[in-house]
Parts: sequence; C-alpha cells; structure tokens
Amino acid sequence: MTDLYEAMSTLRAVRRLREDPIPDDVLQRILQAAAWAPSGGNVQPWRIVAVRDTELRERIGDLYRPQWEKYGAAARAGLQQLQGEARAKRERMLAAADHLGDNMGKAPVLLVFCFNPDHMAITDADLDRPSVVGGGSVYPALQNAMLACVSEGVGCTLTTLLCYAEDEMKVLLQIPDDWYTCAVMPIGYPVLGGHGPISRRPVSKLCFADAFGDPLD
Amino acid sequence: MTDLYEAMSTLRAVRRLREDPIPDDVLQRILQAAAWAPSGGNVQPWRIVAVRDTELRERIGDLYRPQWEKYGAAARAGLQQLQGEARAKRERMLAAADHLGDNMGKAPVLLVFCFNPDHMAITDADLDRPSVVGGGSVYPALQNAMLACVSEGVGCTLTTLLCYAEDEMKVLLQIPDDWYTCAVMPIGYPVLGGHGPISRRPVSKLCFADAFGDPLD
Repeated sequence: MTDLYEAMSTLRAVRRLREDPIPDDVLQRILQAAAWAPSGGNVQPWRIVAVRDTELRERIGDLYRPQWEKYGAAARAGLQQLQGEARAKRERMLAAADHLGDNMGKAPVLLVFCFNPDHMAITDADLDRPSVVGGGSVYPALQNAMLACVSEGVGCTLTTLLCYAEDEMKVLLQIPDDWYTCAVMPIGYPVLGGHGPISRRPVSKLCFADAFGDPLD
Repeated sequence: MTDLYEAMSTLRAVRRLREDPIPDDVLQRILQAAAWAPSGGNVQPWRIVAVRDTELRERIGDLYRPQWEKYGAAARAGLQQLQGEARAKRERMLAAADHLGDNMGKAPVLLVFCFNPDHMAITDADLDRPSVVGGGSVYPALQNAMLACVSEGVGCTLTTLLCYAEDEMKVLLQIPDDWYTCAVMPIGYPVLGGHGPISRRPVSKLCFADAFGDPLD
C-alpha cells in the first residue's frame, strides 16, 4: 500500500537505471495504473508498446542519443545564467541526463506511448494558438504509470524528444499509419536513491482566486 | 491516508455536485497535488484559477450550457447504435451530463486550468498530424488534482468544451494574452455515491510487447 500524496510528492525524474529486468507482475501493475486513467468520452485513444527486446531498445537508444545531444547542448548554454547551488543542481541534472542520453537503450523496458487523433475530440484544434487538448486523453495515463513506478520502487523519467524521430520509431515498432507517438518512458530499478524529494513552485505562485494573478488566500 | 491504486481505480466522472462549499484546507490539498506534478524542464507552464465567486461561476455555467447542448445532442444521436445494458448505461451518463450542463455554475468551485505555450518545448509542433505534446506539461497536474479529489471525497469531472468559448473565458477571468485555457474541472461534494467502480479496457487490449499489436504475454 502506497499513500497517494506520498507517491505524488516523491515522483522525480530517475535517469540512472539498472539493467536488471522488471518482473512481469510489476510491469503489469504499472500498465494497469495507466489503463485506469480517464480519457475524453472514455475512449482511451492511447496504446503502450512495452519494448524489452534488446536490439529494439538499442536502436531506440541510438535515435535518442543525437536528440539529447542537441537539446542538452542548448540546456548547458543556459547554465551561464545560474550561480551557486542552483547551478550545481542543474549541473547534476544535466550529468544524469547525459547518462540517460548515452544509455537509454540499456533500460530494461522502454514504454512507448502512442495515440490516435481520430479517436479524440480536440476542442482547441481550430484556435489560433498551439493545441494541447489532445494530450488530455493521453498524459493522465502516463502520469498514472509514473505514480505506479514510485509505488513499485521503479525509477522512471519521460521524454518527448523522440517525436523528432517519429518516422523511424513508427517503422521500428510497426506502428500503424493512423497512430503516432507522444512520449517514451524508460523504466528500471534505480542506480542511486530513486524517487525522493522534489522541487516545485508553491501553490501560491501557481493558483489564483477568481481572476488570473489574484492571490488565493 | 489513501492508497494510490485505490484512488486510481475509483476515479470516475462525478457530475452531480452539491452546492456546499469546499473547505479551504481541502481545496489547498487538491491544488498542492497539482503543484507536485512533473512538467517538461520542471517549468510548470500551467496555472489554475479557482473560481468561487457566485456571479463568475454563473457566467461560466452560461458559457458551458450551449456547448454541452451541442455536444450532448451529437452524443445522443449515437445512442441508436447501442442496445441493452450498454444503452442504459450511456443514457444514465448522458442524464448526469445534462444535469451538469444545466448546473455547472452551481458547483462550489470551478478549477480553470491555464497554460502558456511560450514556456513549453512542443516537440511535435512541426509534425504533419495534430500536436499533443504541449499537454504533457499540463494534464499530469490535472490528473493529480483529480486523484486528490478522490482522496478528499470530493466529486470532480473534466471538460475541454469551454475551449470553444476561450475568448469569453479569458475576459471573464482576466487571463493575460499569452496564457490560454485547456480544461475546466467543476468540483464539489457528490449528490450520489461519488467516486467508485470504473469501466476501462483491459491492459491486454491497450498494451503491446515490442511491436504495436503484439500481445504482451
């Protein structure tokens, strides 16, 4: 039994993962958590391909490496603006992300989240700004899976960088034409401490009362 | 203390809500759950406007009613294809949704989720299919808030239909030009049983091994 708030408040990105396999029953509970998530019209317009095959994982890792290198270089450039503990913290994060960039293919399971937009009512599709509503029927499942990882003592993190290599991912995993990819979640037992303390803005900075910007209290 | 898997497996849409207020400490815990959610680069590019003002809630309810009427009519047309228990179940759902359509403004709190796309790395923005990745930094917070509602005994449901009235919502809630809305979650104590059993596809229909469509076992 895992306390809900305990799981939420310790869900952090775990980027150094051991190669040991995830037992089938543990994986099953993580996938069940995803399956419980609500979706628009209860359509569940998502699927997960759980990649355990060694060669497929290596090839996905090979697709991820150059994407991370590009993104990581940009993130590293931003380090200049930081000082002291904030900078040290960001450097530790980048070192862990570099490790994942080199080793994603060695995580024992890669959960590849797919979605089908034909099964979604995307109510903001025609607005003159980026659309996000389609994600409302997919990312709750992903959040459930990550919370389940905390409960199971399994490390996890999430990347959307492989959308840049979606064509190659679709060929590798035989994803049908009308399905697409929206996230990859490498999971595995943690090398270090695993899930734990997180750093987030306080509610008072994120939540308002009756008007945007008005304090809640 | 609420068990994580218990909360996930009983999170259902609760559409008949009592008008009684939500105590501040309960609301605070629901918002804290949202604040704990991960987001791309830990940027937290979302905000919540918690609407408790009676007139504002009424006006949001007035914006929701015609949107639901349109959507509900389409949903009702699909009833013809169903028979027996499936049809009866769908009719009960539609009756509850009609109730919400008429009474959303009476829910004691409307949580309006906002996001800023300038703070997001939308990795699928340039792909030749609907983009969903922006939602990856918003809907995990929303899922956390809904799970917290289960823990607090508070009913909740989610609608994205008010994106069709985004301009009016932005004026009502004084939302800045570069922020947008992606969901409204009416919350309140349930009139009937509240959260409980859910109906979802089994993991075997949603999750595959190594290739899309290949059984996991």
